[in-house]
Amino acid sequence: MPQHLNQQYQRLKAIASEDLRGREVARLISEMVLWSRQILQRAERVQLTSRVVGKRYYGFRGDGESRPTNEALYANDERELSRLLRAFRNGFRAATGDDIVRSAYTIAYSIFAANDVYEVGRKASATFFEILIGHMVARAVGVSSRKKVRIPESGADLPTDYVFDPGRNSRKIHLPIKTSTRERAVQAWVHQLVLERIFGTGVYRGVLVVSAETKRDSRTGEVFEICVPKQLQMFQSRVAAISRIYYLDPPHVYLNLAAEFPRVEVKSFGEAFGELRELLRA
Amino acid sequence: MPQHLNQQYQRLKAIASEDLRGREVARLISEMVLWSRQILQRAERVQLTSRVVGKRYYGFRGDGESRPTNEALYANDERELSRLLRAFRNGFRAATGDDIVRSAYTIAYSIFAANDVYEVGRKASATFFEILIGHMVARAVGVSSRKKVRIPESGADLPTDYVFDPGRNSRKIHLPIKTSTRERAVQAWVHQLVLERIFGTGVYRGVLVVSAETKRDSRTGEVFEICVPKQLQMFQSRVAAISRIYYLDPPHVYLNLAAEFPRVEVKSFGEAFGELRELLRA
Repeated sequence: MPQHLNQQYQRLKAIASEDLRGREVARLISEMVLWSRQILQRAERVQLTSRVVGKRYYGFRGDGESRPTNEALYANDERELSRLLRAFRNGFRAATGDDIVRSAYTIAYSIFAANDVYEVGRKASATFFEILIGHMVARAVGVSSRKKVRIPESGADLPTDYVFDPGRNSRKIHLPIKTSTRERAVQAWVHQLVLERIFGTGVYRGVLVVSAETKRDSRTGEVFEICVPKQLQMFQSRVAAISRIYYLDPPHVYLNLAAEFPRVEVKSFGEAFGELRELLRA
Repeated sequence: MPQHLNQQYQRLKAIASEDLRGREVARLISEMVLWSRQILQRAERVQLTSRVVGKRYYGFRGDGESRPTNEALYANDERELSRLLRAFRNGFRAATGDDIVRSAYTIAYSIFAANDVYEVGRKASATFFEILIGHMVARAVGVSSRKKVRIPESGADLPTDYVFDPGRNSRKIHLPIKTSTRERAVQAWVHQLVLERIFGTGVYRGVLVVSAETKRDSRTGEVFEICVPKQLQMFQSRVAAISRIYYLDPPHVYLNLAAEFPRVEVKSFGEAFGELRELLRA
């Protein structure tokens, strides 16, 4: 079964690189989720000791152990899953922020858990997550994505995270996507700075999407969030300004940054859909 | 025996944080090297297939396998080792660039190999390397190090890599140190940028010291160098300018960057000693 999931994953990568916004991407992702759930039926479900205030996590155990899964965000019920997948395939027309987050979280963590349990390697999960979020954002803003920009003075291509460019009379979106940031958070700010130094300030809006900052201590099995709020503030004030950070499972300490100074606008991913077009305009 | 090495390592960290430039640091490092060499006598020495043009590598095998060790830079002979350790303890007075590199490389890779073979974890090796290079540079420039700077407007401390500040009428050196960079190279440029944005351009000279960029493919056992020259050029032109990158085992593709544009001054670590005081003045 993992082989079949891997074949689907290879196809997804090929299709997404041609048309990230296309419906075929959503269809294939839905299929992959159903396969993952079948795989996970054979895995053991283990309650984890959570050191994150107000959140409960469990994991799946097979050949390997899965990363922590947030009980409140992961849809276990098959009927609810069908409903969330349908909303996803319909591009979340009229969906609530809650449904958007639960849908994205359940899709992502079904695949993550299946990959972790079968020790597929973290790269496949990271790439899958990039495609999942990239697809959702592409449909939300109604613009196709690119993964490079042309440097004006040299004509050379600079490889980037997904960028969305509605045309010369519009701001553009620069969309780094990560399953977690840890010491790699800085990359989003550096790429934002590089775009600013090539194209000027305010042309690209930086929007960072992250799944979670949880980590399971391999010795004790306890779940922690690894957060570096002071560092994010330093990047925001001394490297470049990122417009939004959206989390599927936002750490409280990061949500608080939206009310502090230097301000870092951290929000739940559910709020992205109402704001993304605004970010392109304003 | 690894326990004893670990005790020495814990003491080294404590002593170095008090006085990185002190002779006690050199004495303790020499002792650790001799212990490591004893440990390594019980490990198997394995020739590795090198895919790096013009360089030969071998490894040590015990409980774990060591990272690749460059044959031309690692002193195997015990008499040569004694001579190199003596030069090291004397602060390389009148030593040639070649001796400086061989000494630093042999010291570092004796410890790395012992740690790898006993699966001590990469963090201890990285910290050891930071102290080794930090000590050598502190003695070369004749200034004590700090690991934080005070942000003028807030009075808060910003944690940094080693910085060397001879006083208000002098430039200062910002010294990131890494066993290899890979995707983490960007950190050196970001920290350089942050210092520039706090203190102005040209106050801190960025000097990055790296051991090597080699990696052993865990499947085939072959040794590669992982290099991203275009990325370094982009950081150099769009993030901040680093004054020097010194390698113990410099990749050819990086050495070539010193003759290209945007220029990245990559050199052998042996050249650092003649240049560091100049970098503080010029």
